[in-house]
Amino acid sequence: MKIIVDAFGGDNAPLEIIKGCAQAVEELDLDIMLTGSEQEIRRVAQANSISLNRIEIADTPDVITMEDAAGEIMKSKSNSSMALGLKKLAAGEGDAFLSAGNSGALVVGATFIVKRIKGIKRVAFAPVLPKNKGFFMLIDSGANIECKPEMLCQFGVMASIYVEKVMGVKNPRVALANVGTEDHKGGELQHQAFALLKQAPIHFIGNVEARDIPDDAADVIVADGFTGNSILKLYEGVAMVMMGKFKEIFQKSLKNKIAAAMVLPDMKELKRTMDYNEYGGAPLMGVAKPVFKAHGSAKAKTLKNALRLTKAYVEGNVVQEIADSLQAIRGVEQP
Amino acid sequence: MKIIVDAFGGDNAPLEIIKGCAQAVEELDLDIMLTGSEQEIRRVAQANSISLNRIEIADTPDVITMEDAAGEIMKSKSNSSMALGLKKLAAGEGDAFLSAGNSGALVVGATFIVKRIKGIKRVAFAPVLPKNKGFFMLIDSGANIECKPEMLCQFGVMASIYVEKVMGVKNPRVALANVGTEDHKGGELQHQAFALLKQAPIHFIGNVEARDIPDDAADVIVADGFTGNSILKLYEGVAMVMMGKFKEIFQKSLKNKIAAAMVLPDMKELKRTMDYNEYGGAPLMGVAKPVFKAHGSAKAKTLKNALRLTKAYVEGNVVQEIADSLQAIRGVEQP
Repeated sequence: MKIIVDAFGGDNAPLEIIKGCAQAVEELDLDIMLTGSEQEIRRVAQANSISLNRIEIADTPDVITMEDAAGEIMKSKSNSSMALGLKKLAAGEGDAFLSAGNSGALVVGATFIVKRIKGIKRVAFAPVLPKNKGFFMLIDSGANIECKPEMLCQFGVMASIYVEKVMGVKNPRVALANVGTEDHKGGELQHQAFALLKQAPIHFIGNVEARDIPDDAADVIVADGFTGNSILKLYEGVAMVMMGKFKEIFQKSLKNKIAAAMVLPDMKELKRTMDYNEYGGAPLMGVAKPVFKAHGSAKAKTLKNALRLTKAYVEGNVVQEIADSLQAIRGVEQP
Repeated sequence: MKIIVDAFGGDNAPLEIIKGCAQAVEELDLDIMLTGSEQEIRRVAQANSISLNRIEIADTPDVITMEDAAGEIMKSKSNSSMALGLKKLAAGEGDAFLSAGNSGALVVGATFIVKRIKGIKRVAFAPVLPKNKGFFMLIDSGANIECKPEMLCQFGVMASIYVEKVMGVKNPRVALANVGTEDHKGGELQHQAFALLKQAPIHFIGNVEARDIPDDAADVIVADGFTGNSILKLYEGVAMVMMGKFKEIFQKSLKNKIAAAMVLPDMKELKRTMDYNEYGGAPLMGVAKPVFKAHGSAKAKTLKNALRLTKAYVEGNVVQEIADSLQAIRGVEQP
């Protein structure tokens, strides 16, 4: 399997990207195609003694930055490392594409260069987040600020397939993020999405309140991109503040420091399981070929985790499964 | 000051409500008017040796339950303890009204019986939540699932006044909950609300991401009721799961149990500061007289805290301040 990787996406590019790719080649039995300035990639690899074994380079000098407007990937930045990677994927020169760069540009580029699965209205980010026991997939975490009910229904179907095929959860529970659990809760968007999800070929368990999401309410949480983005970021924010509060307690006195030392291994394990970065990033669902977004702040380890998930995305045959399931969803929309 | 209290609102009514009122009379120098079945109130007070000193009773046999549709407060439940309390407030027989009952019914009843402040488009719930240092006010936490930009602007102004007058924060920082910090982020609602908030007579600091809310991003967070409700409930959910995780660690082994005992007082203090119930509930902002919602699960202590906040709501002269400020907001809308 060959995964195309944007060598110049994210805060720590290209060094940490190249490092993560080299580790993935070793550990995950992958071939890599890096996109970006070949000269710079070779210079950084050499300066840091990173092997480029099984890593080829598709040369382009341009980079799309976090400050660039998303649409520029089709205009002034159509030769950026991200755009080139998407073109290589569309042309069949690799099995998947991974970038830690500008999320908005990735949505636009994937939509217009690689295209959507036929019948899919919008692509959506679907990060995997930790919960009380295990994890859940949140879809959409921010690709679509304004959504229509049909989009939410498709999000639920796509994430259900991913969670089943890639994460191995049998018959995943899909729920709609809402302001109450009763069927009639929410606004017009939720009412209509509820009706569509209920008829979709998935295990839809109804509405969930945000309070119950961290406590194993469902395996897939469906939301419009505004709500999903708020959930994703608040999740991280509250967890981080709580960890900080505990750290404060543990440093408060000598007695507390001794107590901290006694529970240190368990605290580290907790921090690891609550750490969003452990999950590497998020698949961009609905694209006609696997596209994966790594965290902008990804270092080598996170990038390698993202490559592991990208590999599973390909192996799970998720794109084909989604395409196959669309017949059933279309049946829902036009009975 | 006399506060009218719904004796039959919430999961623990009437016993915990009556108990909380009796404690508030003692500690807060208040007069109370309880609404509900006089016979039942007297029976419960006597059976539990609760003094009814400075507590009068407005007798009505009916109760609006959590299962009743909100609109029933104006129809079949127009003689419920909640409806009677609102009528007594509208008639000037008390200075404020407090209920731990059906939130939707309280919104409808307050709007149509007590009425809104002239010029205010919608009433909104504004709970106070803990953050890294101190607290912030979230408005709207769920009274209005679908909002217009003008509503969000008014929410910001109302909460700013409350936080300044009642909580003593000088020139409170007001921010709009959004998917990014840049001015242009969000959908149509956020774009327009941003423009209005920028011109309002408040210290508007722009957009905040949900990630930064727990970390002292602002003193007032403005959101539509759907987003606000998600923030409120996820906040609680993540904090509770994190506390549970720590508890698990502390019970895992004898060594960990010893460590737990060493930090126990500090852990209890943290649990208290992160406990949403400590804050007693939320003012319903925009009503022409002070109306306060206590948590549905309120026990005596929470109810007493809610009465303390209700008293401060009256003393802060918040309603008049909001009415006075509307001239300036209207200036924004019609320049």
